[in-house]
Amino acid sequence: MSSLTKLSSNKTFGGHVIKYEHASTELDCTMKFNVFLPKEADQSPVPAIYFLSGLTCTEDNFIQKSGAMAEAAKHGLALIAPDTSPRGVSIEGDSDSWDFGTGAGFYLDATDPKWAKHYRMYSYVSKELPELIKQLPIDATRVSIMGHSMGGHGALSIFLKNSAQYKSASAFSPIANPMNCPWGQKAFSNYLGDNKDEWEQYDTVELLKSFQGQHNHVLVDVGTSDNFLQGELKIDTLQQTVDDLGRADQWKIRYQEGYDHSYFFISTFVADHIQHHASYLK
Amino acid sequence: MSSLTKLSSNKTFGGHVIKYEHASTELDCTMKFNVFLPKEADQSPVPAIYFLSGLTCTEDNFIQKSGAMAEAAKHGLALIAPDTSPRGVSIEGDSDSWDFGTGAGFYLDATDPKWAKHYRMYSYVSKELPELIKQLPIDATRVSIMGHSMGGHGALSIFLKNSAQYKSASAFSPIANPMNCPWGQKAFSNYLGDNKDEWEQYDTVELLKSFQGQHNHVLVDVGTSDNFLQGELKIDTLQQTVDDLGRADQWKIRYQEGYDHSYFFISTFVADHIQHHASYLK
Repeated sequence: MSSLTKLSSNKTFGGHVIKYEHASTELDCTMKFNVFLPKEADQSPVPAIYFLSGLTCTEDNFIQKSGAMAEAAKHGLALIAPDTSPRGVSIEGDSDSWDFGTGAGFYLDATDPKWAKHYRMYSYVSKELPELIKQLPIDATRVSIMGHSMGGHGALSIFLKNSAQYKSASAFSPIANPMNCPWGQKAFSNYLGDNKDEWEQYDTVELLKSFQGQHNHVLVDVGTSDNFLQGELKIDTLQQTVDDLGRADQWKIRYQEGYDHSYFFISTFVADHIQHHASYLK
Repeated sequence: MSSLTKLSSNKTFGGHVIKYEHASTELDCTMKFNVFLPKEADQSPVPAIYFLSGLTCTEDNFIQKSGAMAEAAKHGLALIAPDTSPRGVSIEGDSDSWDFGTGAGFYLDATDPKWAKHYRMYSYVSKELPELIKQLPIDATRVSIMGHSMGGHGALSIFLKNSAQYKSASAFSPIANPMNCPWGQKAFSNYLGDNKDEWEQYDTVELLKSFQGQHNHVLVDVGTSDNFLQGELKIDTLQQTVDDLGRADQWKIRYQEGYDHSYFFISTFVADHIQHHASYLK
């Protein structure tokens, strides 16, 4: 296992936000992530929540803009905020658009030969990071996962594929059915090729249909003034699938009147999400 | 009075963050500022707190990173976040360093002919903005002022010079005695020339010595791990002055163990500051 290099540490809400750098074996490049460790971590390992960010973000956006540490500190929970794609690798076309390539790893393992060496964010988040954080005072048996937009897709799909690994999941404005929206189709066709069977392995709506896990503790918030609500997020399709499967008691999907896709929306409801996870992590 | 052009509006914590642009008569340029209006402002004018930002900041840093809207919404208070200098003016040397010129207006009215036309942030914040916000649902008779670093200097000095205008003041890591620190000496000598009598008109410690106002409801927080604590902020000098004047009951100065100069510090204690102001604004 590679070692973690501490780049910075800032005290906040009685704990610390720490930025780490490390060599990633899955992504074959140097990566950074942020961790918030509450003061309780000085005494013994604490439960943690992963937060997966959206298109164009780095490991910093959530930590700087969400206000989540205020609530995480109240519950003695750690927060883990990874980056959104491999960094410092040079692949033709990886910086041509804001919704594909750098900053847009889509939390999958690419199979297209051009991308397959580095673009393995699914395995990075679900396998490599959980091993790495064993070096930190985090209780690896009590973790949950959440995210925003592309990261909401990541959180829900990774949760459905590894439900024994996470106590609960939540998402803000997730790309819920990427197979059927422009962002997802662009990413999946380039990273995975044309085989729709492979696409289904990273699509929340499709994964939910075949889900056989024991539990489903999921909270989803989306704003009714989100410009991407109809074209990209497909929350109605997710709600219909939840209803058809009789899982409405396990999937709480809330439409928040007048809110948009920004951190002004996330910060308003992030305390609700932390409380949701805390109830399953305690 | 110039009109306000609304550039954006985002719903947050039940209210809205609105970005305005306007022609500034004091600064002779186009300026932007952000306002958080809580939902109560839909019914009737609400009290407000100005937040003055530090070196290199714009009108966005506080709004995006402080988490202050969570607490402001609880108390039904507006927040007003101006920029830190004139923008879009071209003066030789205004972009040569991060601690002088653009992004570093120091909340004074320059007298040096080179800077005097545009660098009038003191009058902009204390006179022009209070007139402009009469166009918004804000109760102009109930306002307070706070700030960070250079903006902490701005908040405390503007408060002491206009104590009838503000119900209370507070500051994070203020430059408390700019006449006697490198940041302040660089700014004051360039903007004001060599006359120390003029410098004293913008120095919190000096203004406090001659303060004749009726009230002094001030809260100051500073981190003990702030890299600028000894060299630039001079909080010990402020504390000594407060003690010498017998004003320790009116000036609450707190040293926060282990915290630094960043927004990770501000966000931790911003709720305390909002509550401080709320107690005088209600």
